[in-house]
This record gives sequence, structure tokens and C-alpha cells, in this order.
Amino acid sequence: MAKRTRTKQTAKAKRQRESDQALARMVEVAEGIHGDIKREKKPHMSFPIRSLSNVRYDPRGGTFKMLGRKSRRDFSYATVKTFAQSVRMLAVSKAVVEDDDIINKREAYYRSKSWGEAAFTEQPESDTVMEDPEAMLGFNREQIGFIPDEHGGSVAGRLTVIDQDPATGDDVEIDCTRFGTGAYSVPPQVEQLRFETTAKFILVVETTAMFQRLVKHAFWDTANCVLIAMGGVPTRACRRFIRRLSDAFRLRVFAFTDGDPYGYANIYRTLKVGSGNAAHLNEFFCVPRSRFLGVTPQDVIDYKLPTQPLKDIDIKRAKDALKNDPFFRHHKEWQKAIAQMLKMKVRVEQQAFAAHSLNFVIEEYLPRKLRHTKQFLP
Amino acid sequence: MAKRTRTKQTAKAKRQRESDQALARMVEVAEGIHGDIKREKKPHMSFPIRSLSNVRYDPRGGTFKMLGRKSRRDFSYATVKTFAQSVRMLAVSKAVVEDDDIINKREAYYRSKSWGEAAFTEQPESDTVMEDPEAMLGFNREQIGFIPDEHGGSVAGRLTVIDQDPATGDDVEIDCTRFGTGAYSVPPQVEQLRFETTAKFILVVETTAMFQRLVKHAFWDTANCVLIAMGGVPTRACRRFIRRLSDAFRLRVFAFTDGDPYGYANIYRTLKVGSGNAAHLNEFFCVPRSRFLGVTPQDVIDYKLPTQPLKDIDIKRAKDALKNDPFFRHHKEWQKAIAQMLKMKVRVEQQAFAAHSLNFVIEEYLPRKLRHTKQFLP
Repeated sequence: MAKRTRTKQTAKAKRQRESDQALARMVEVAEGIHGDIKREKKPHMSFPIRSLSNVRYDPRGGTFKMLGRKSRRDFSYATVKTFAQSVRMLAVSKAVVEDDDIINKREAYYRSKSWGEAAFTEQPESDTVMEDPEAMLGFNREQIGFIPDEHGGSVAGRLTVIDQDPATGDDVEIDCTRFGTGAYSVPPQVEQLRFETTAKFILVVETTAMFQRLVKHAFWDTANCVLIAMGGVPTRACRRFIRRLSDAFRLRVFAFTDGDPYGYANIYRTLKVGSGNAAHLNEFFCVPRSRFLGVTPQDVIDYKLPTQPLKDIDIKRAKDALKNDPFFRHHKEWQKAIAQMLKMKVRVEQQAFAAHSLNFVIEEYLPRKLRHTKQFLP
Repeated sequence: MAKRTRTKQTAKAKRQRESDQALARMVEVAEGIHGDIKREKKPHMSFPIRSLSNVRYDPRGGTFKMLGRKSRRDFSYATVKTFAQSVRMLAVSKAVVEDDDIINKREAYYRSKSWGEAAFTEQPESDTVMEDPEAMLGFNREQIGFIPDEHGGSVAGRLTVIDQDPATGDDVEIDCTRFGTGAYSVPPQVEQLRFETTAKFILVVETTAMFQRLVKHAFWDTANCVLIAMGGVPTRACRRFIRRLSDAFRLRVFAFTDGDPYGYANIYRTLKVGSGNAAHLNEFFCVPRSRFLGVTPQDVIDYKLPTQPLKDIDIKRAKDALKNDPFFRHHKEWQKAIAQMLKMKVRVEQQAFAAHSLNFVIEEYLPRKLRHTKQFLP
């Protein structure tokens, strides 16, 4: 019997409540500025500092936590334009939330062309200002209607996604076992989605090609799981989708990437605890139930895999992770694995199993690994 | 009443026939080599030359056609390794087709690790050799099981795709009106797909963000069309999908990209007539029913759009298209449009309509343009 996440009413109510909260926060911020002006005080805005320096690793929750340091933008001769833009951007956000619409960075940039002298002249300018409401309000961009121009990941397997039909507003049930060799493409906003599943775990893979192999051989059917292709470092929509699905059913998430510093420190670390320069968002985007399946340096030995020599950038990235990344500094198992890789001086790709036979990965590697999930790296 | 492409039996039979033909060609090539050796002649292979120099534009079919020049690889001291690899790769292709399996470039590279001295040492080496069977056999890579590691495009709208369930082999019907805010992700192999549709045309858009806007506002419902996001230059799977769908129902394909030389000469040109360095494949991948909806340089004036100055690379690309590209050289309308852009010295993005209002593109631009499809650029 399929389990189902909360009832339709509750999910819609939750979404409405979030919109209302976001709108209330926007009005509150605007009233603060307005109040300052009326009292003839210089208005200001304050933001949490968004960098690894304002972050600590919380081993219990398995996430980065903000340390609470804030920066402040005062109204002055030098900041007048940025200040005006931030207020304008807040107004755009408000309209988008009220209309239940979406907006992306380029559209926001072009919306500014009607702001007279406050118009953005370059996109990096609008990007920064767009991240302001997000940080200031404590909502993630997607919750206030800002969507990225990127693909949210592909999904196949034992999962039904419940979304609303944009034309009618009715529920639609999307059965991810019924896509043939294709897949469900995750939308940029995932807050409204509900789920039904009987899967035992979620398997997230780095490459689209590996995902295709697993789909072609219906691995989700034999392993009773949900398959997700990240296509490199997972996008925000992809991470939030995995997080919400994992939370809803307390599903474990197993990550299968190349065995190199990019796979460990960029893809997996971002999936599990979030990224350093968006530390204020990690509470939404991290996936604490993630465990690392492979490819590990030990797998190279155990499965006699062909390798490539580490490049200079790999070595730099690995040393940097050991030295500066609070996540890897916390986990002894990871330090050991990365040290082993540095000693072996090689990296390995998830396609390397093809050296034995095309489907060795499906017939041997994954089943063997999945019998000992407790041994996965944290 | 939905129209349906050929019956199940015919589609499966067609696919089987293609596999049989590919296998027969492989055996024929191998027997040719074997025969040469038995007769103590030096074996050789021959390939069509894959470049713009071996191509002419066929204005009737709307595609690039090969001129038929061939290159020949003789067996010699210098070519012995490549020769051996090509034969090995042919054997791998044969196994993949026989097993109805798939393989990607990295997997092919690793398969070679069991070939002893013929093993590839670098990926570019295997890439070239992998393109050999394709050219030599006259089948596209996907028909002989080679799949790319890339996303095949997202689809939403009035379309049902019929694929087979990898687990059971049964037909699955994928209703692309039932994905909510998500989408159908096109698989890497599309030859087996069948279609049902009542749509009047296919609208292909450059950016995922624009696709999301059109999906969010159910544009496919009001316009009665199929929406496809290319995400930049369309991948092979994406182009082949559009081509097969367009062919099946004689559906027109309207392209909506940024108004810049990259949108015209890279994205649209590739979609419509194919790419120069894969000229031997264009018969499979071109989409002759394509017309260019916008954004045109004239749209910048008609719709008072904000622009950016052309960069040096834009100017170079535009001049190159006018001078060297057989497609643009053939079409006076395109020469006029590109000359107009060079004169205006600006480029325009498909998000620029947001300057008027977020949904101007849906409420004004697209409906107005779609009333005069005959005026679309060829």
C-alpha cells in the first residue's frame, strides 16, 4: 500500500501559509524602511553574512549552521542606487508571490528597465540584489517565486508525484514507473509537490548516462528505489526535491558519483550539507539523510578498476577539503578516504565498471554495495 | 480524436528491421576486411568525409547533403592500432545491438581496457573511433546503441508518447498534458517512440526558464501545441525527437531563441539543417519543417525591446554565417535579418519582453506572431 504525504488540503494550506508569511515579512521590511524615513532617520537593511566564515558544521543535524553575523546596508550617497533597487526588487517579489507567478534572473533584470534611474545596467548587479530579499526575508528564492534557468534533475522509479495542473488547478498524479526509457523532469519550484512511494531508498547518480543505464535495465524495479540523475553538482530544485522526498518518508539517500575530489567535495558535499556561499539557505537545500555509496578509493582496489592519474586541480581540491571544509574536517572516515586517494594518486569514474562488462555495475557492484549500507561514507 | 503514429507491430517491426540491417552491415564490413586478409591484400575501411567542405545545401529538402567524397583508412604500420580499435569497436556495437543494450562514450572507453594493446589511452582517441562505425555503416550512433551523456530536452503539452516499459516490455503511454509544472524528459534513444497528438504545431524554446513560464501558464493549452525546451543548442536526442514527431504528423516547428548570432547560426541552424561537422548524420537529425519565430532584429523595433551591444564574438559569428554558411547564403531573408542586426549593433534576449510585463511574451508577443506564421524566417 503506497504511503502518501499529507492530505491535499494540508499541502495547499501550508503553501498558502508560506506565501502569507513571505508577504508579511516583505511588508514588515518595507514598513521598517518607511518608518525610518518618517522619523527622519537614515533607513537601513540587514542581511546575514553569506560565506563559509559565518558557518559552523552541526554534526547532529548534519548541516552547516549560520553563526548569526550580519551585515548592514545603510542608506547613503554611495548606496542610494542599490538601496532603491533592493526596495524595487522587494516590490517585484511581492507581486510575483501575490500572482502565484514565477520570475527568473534575466526577467528580473529586464523588469528593472521600467525603474528609471534605478534600472540595472549589468546582470551581476541584479543577481546580487536578487539574493538580498532571500537572505533578508529568510525565505528561499523559489518560495518567493524566483526560479533558476536550469534543469532540475531527472527522476524514474517507485514514486508518484502529485502536482497541480497549471490550466485547471486540479491535482495531477505523475507515476514515475510509467516513463519507459524517459524520465520525469523536476520543475524549478517543488514546494507544492506531494509524494506517494513504497521505495526503500533514493539512489542519486552523477551522470545522465549512468542514470540511463539504470533506467534501461529497470534497476528501480529490482532494487525497489527511486532513481535521480543530478547531472553534475545538483541544482537547487534537484536538492530541494530530494530533501522533501527524503523528509516525507524518512528515506535514505545514497549517492553514486565519480571517485574524485569533484565528486566528493563538490557534488556530494553540496548535496548533503549545502554550499558554503549560500550558507543561509542550507536549511532548505541540504539532504542530511545522504550517505556516500561510491565510487570510493577502496572500490578501485576491491573491484580492480581502471583509473586516471589525479590532476593538479584534483590534488588542490582534495587538500583544500581536508584543510578548510568543516564537513570533511568533522568526519574521520572521509579524511581517511581522501588521504587514501591522495596516496593512490588516482581518480576513478563511475563508468569504469564497464571494463569488466557493460552491466557489471548493475549486476555486481550496486547489489554488493547495497547489502552493506552501514559501511557507506557519512 | 487523437491521431496515432503507426501501429505497435509496425513500429516494433521497423526497429527490428533497422537492427537487422545494422547487424548485416557490420558483418559485411568485417567480412570485407577478413576477405582482404585471406586474399593477402592489405585490408582497408572507407568513410565519408565529415566536414562542411563535403556538403551542399539542398534548398528543396531544406537540409545539408553529402557530396560523397570518401576517405580511406588502409592497414599499415602507422594505422595498425586504430585499425584494430575500429574492428574492436565494431564488435562492441554488434554486441550492444544484439542485446538491445546501450553504451556511452566513457563506457566504450573502459570496455577497451580488456583489448590488450589495442586499449584506448585517451578519450579523444575513442571518440574518433566511435564515430567511425556510425559513418562507415550509415546508421546514426543511437541506432547502434551509442548514447550521449546529455539531457535530451523537456517536453510538455498536447502529446502522448508511447514507449516500452524496460521491466516488462509492455507499452507505456506518457501523457504530456499531465505533468503539472514538471515535464517529460526525452530519453537518449528515441527511435522506438510512437506518438499521439492533436497539436497544431511544436514550439521549441531556447531557455529552460522560458519553457517554465510557458508551462506555468499552460501556454500549450491555449495555443494547442507541444512545448519543447532545448536548453541551448539542441542535443541529438532532442533534435531526433522533434524530427520524428514533426514527420509523423507533418507538424510545423517554430523556434523561439534569443535574437543573437548564437541563437540564429548555432541553435536554429543546427536544429533546422544540422551541424557541419556531422554532415553524414543530418538526414537523421535535421528538422526541415522548422521556421524561425523570433526574436528577430525587427522585433526589437516593433516591440521596443531593451538590448545589449553586440560583442566582438557576435559580430565575427554573424559575418562568418553570411560568408561561409551554405544555409544563410541560400536564404535572402536571413541575410537581410543578419545584416539588420549588424547595422543595429545589438542583440536581444528572449527574456527582454519582461521589460513590458512578466507575461507580455505570453499575452502579446507569441499570439501576435503566431497569427502570421508565413512571415517567419525560413
